[in-house]
Amino acid sequence: MNASIVTGQQARQASRNNKTHSASTSGLAPGYLQANLIILPSRYANDFRNLCARNPVPCPLIAESANKGCDNAVVSHIDNLRGDEILGEWCDLRRDAPHYMVYKDSKLEKSHCDDVVAEWTDDHVAFLIGCSYSFETALATAGLPPRQLLLGRNVPMYRTKLRLCPSGVFQGGTYVVSMRPYKRRDVDKVRDITRRFGATHGEPLDWGWEAVERLGIKDIDRPEWGDAPLDGDGKKAFGEMRGQIKSRDEDGEFKEDEDEGDEEIPVFWGCGVTPQEAVMRAGLEGVVMAHAPGHMLVLDARDEDLAR
Amino acid sequence: MNASIVTGQQARQASRNNKTHSASTSGLAPGYLQANLIILPSRYANDFRNLCARNPVPCPLIAESANKGCDNAVVSHIDNLRGDEILGEWCDLRRDAPHYMVYKDSKLEKSHCDDVVAEWTDDHVAFLIGCSYSFETALATAGLPPRQLLLGRNVPMYRTKLRLCPSGVFQGGTYVVSMRPYKRRDVDKVRDITRRFGATHGEPLDWGWEAVERLGIKDIDRPEWGDAPLDGDGKKAFGEMRGQIKSRDEDGEFKEDEDEGDEEIPVFWGCGVTPQEAVMRAGLEGVVMAHAPGHMLVLDARDEDLAR
Repeated sequence: MNASIVTGQQARQASRNNKTHSASTSGLAPGYLQANLIILPSRYANDFRNLCARNPVPCPLIAESANKGCDNAVVSHIDNLRGDEILGEWCDLRRDAPHYMVYKDSKLEKSHCDDVVAEWTDDHVAFLIGCSYSFETALATAGLPPRQLLLGRNVPMYRTKLRLCPSGVFQGGTYVVSMRPYKRRDVDKVRDITRRFGATHGEPLDWGWEAVERLGIKDIDRPEWGDAPLDGDGKKAFGEMRGQIKSRDEDGEFKEDEDEGDEEIPVFWGCGVTPQEAVMRAGLEGVVMAHAPGHMLVLDARDEDLAR
Repeated sequence: MNASIVTGQQARQASRNNKTHSASTSGLAPGYLQANLIILPSRYANDFRNLCARNPVPCPLIAESANKGCDNAVVSHIDNLRGDEILGEWCDLRRDAPHYMVYKDSKLEKSHCDDVVAEWTDDHVAFLIGCSYSFETALATAGLPPRQLLLGRNVPMYRTKLRLCPSGVFQGGTYVVSMRPYKRRDVDKVRDITRRFGATHGEPLDWGWEAVERLGIKDIDRPEWGDAPLDGDGKKAFGEMRGQIKSRDEDGEFKEDEDEGDEEIPVFWGCGVTPQEAVMRAGLEGVVMAHAPGHMLVLDARDEDLAR
């Protein structure tokens, strides 16, 4: 039934009726913005909003509940978009993501439940954080599709030692990054394409094999979230490609080539798992809720609305 | 004559007439906002604006030229302030900072010149970046005056290894931080006071002796900019205080005390030297201008206007 889901509202309706059975919302309602969802007790709202303001690359705040306890309207944090353009009349933040996670006093209570109607209170505030699905469409359109899409895998995500600027109770957190391999010669183009998507992580924050050490990533082949990255054929671990330069000749065979631009290198972007990690790390009291990983809230605004 | 300078406009008028002879604008027109000034060829404006948007803690962008080449009006980057409230009718970005630095093709051409009338072209764009003078007033008012103010010294500033999120031509830059010593027990209060000043670096980004290593600061007693930090009496190097706990007894004598809260630790904030460093590092072509260190542009908006 996914082919019949072409708008954000249709995607939310399917979620609400528990009719989305995909592994993720990737590819649902193409061109519509998808958001990470974090729902907090109101006493943490100021600190969280400020955490996002201080760390906009990994935590791009798009919108939040119109007021405390409001589950059906948002105010915008994007200059050129109103709240009702981001999420229109027909929305229910408690039911419109396909699956939710529920934490009580920082311990997981429920995993992948269909809604949080029972848990939501008039003291909760929902935050919508940008997601990299937006710029992936733009990369694919420009002829530079992310490898994990071609291979039907999830994007690899890594914990780093790059520290967030703290905000109130949110201290000691670090960036989580997503990684997509590109040829060295294509990095500038990839940077240019994703730069416009400032509200969904924007251009890469680092790249190259040296960046793996710089960011403190333990093992490029063992991401903390998502699937392990592979070479272009989907056969070898991506880490084995380090220092290898390969390109296909006219017969479709691999050959050695000395042009440095052909080397594939890891390219890293800020990742929306960052604020979730920061929330988990803060040891909050009370009930905290989030979408289940990969099962985003689909919005009424379009990717292009966010491109600056 | 400084006592007669009570408004931002008066401070700028004195600068324009070359009548400010202080070592810095610190303490001029108390309560009025002061800004770091960076003036770039227009082709770098988008990348620089984006650099600030991606790194708001060390690079809090307050305003910029109303349009390319405009030297007498700004547009605001602060939600609740208009451009003409930040810098009103009577302003001249080429003359209203006490002293300027001029760089040509990334090499210093002029140091501490009185104006940049000859260098300014209709292709230049001026950027105004927040400065920590704003929250220092608030700290002093709350009974927690920064030590360097009490000792009549400049705040120490350090290069770190904490990397900025890159933006276009601005790559590989790192945070510059300022440091003010506080007792461990006062850190939460200091965080609360400065948090409101999000447009002028906000709350600290790290603190404690462990932060010195974490940030990659080479020697706490040898800052890259400003004056070396001292103990409370202004006699010993601050680095010697590491692990020492002292408090005065009733007779005013120092005594040993076992309460950890009495230990003085370094507290670090984002610093407005960061964007200048990033600009220098980028190896830009053409004429780049900036205020001379410490000789800020005094604005018409007040510190309290920026406090959220």
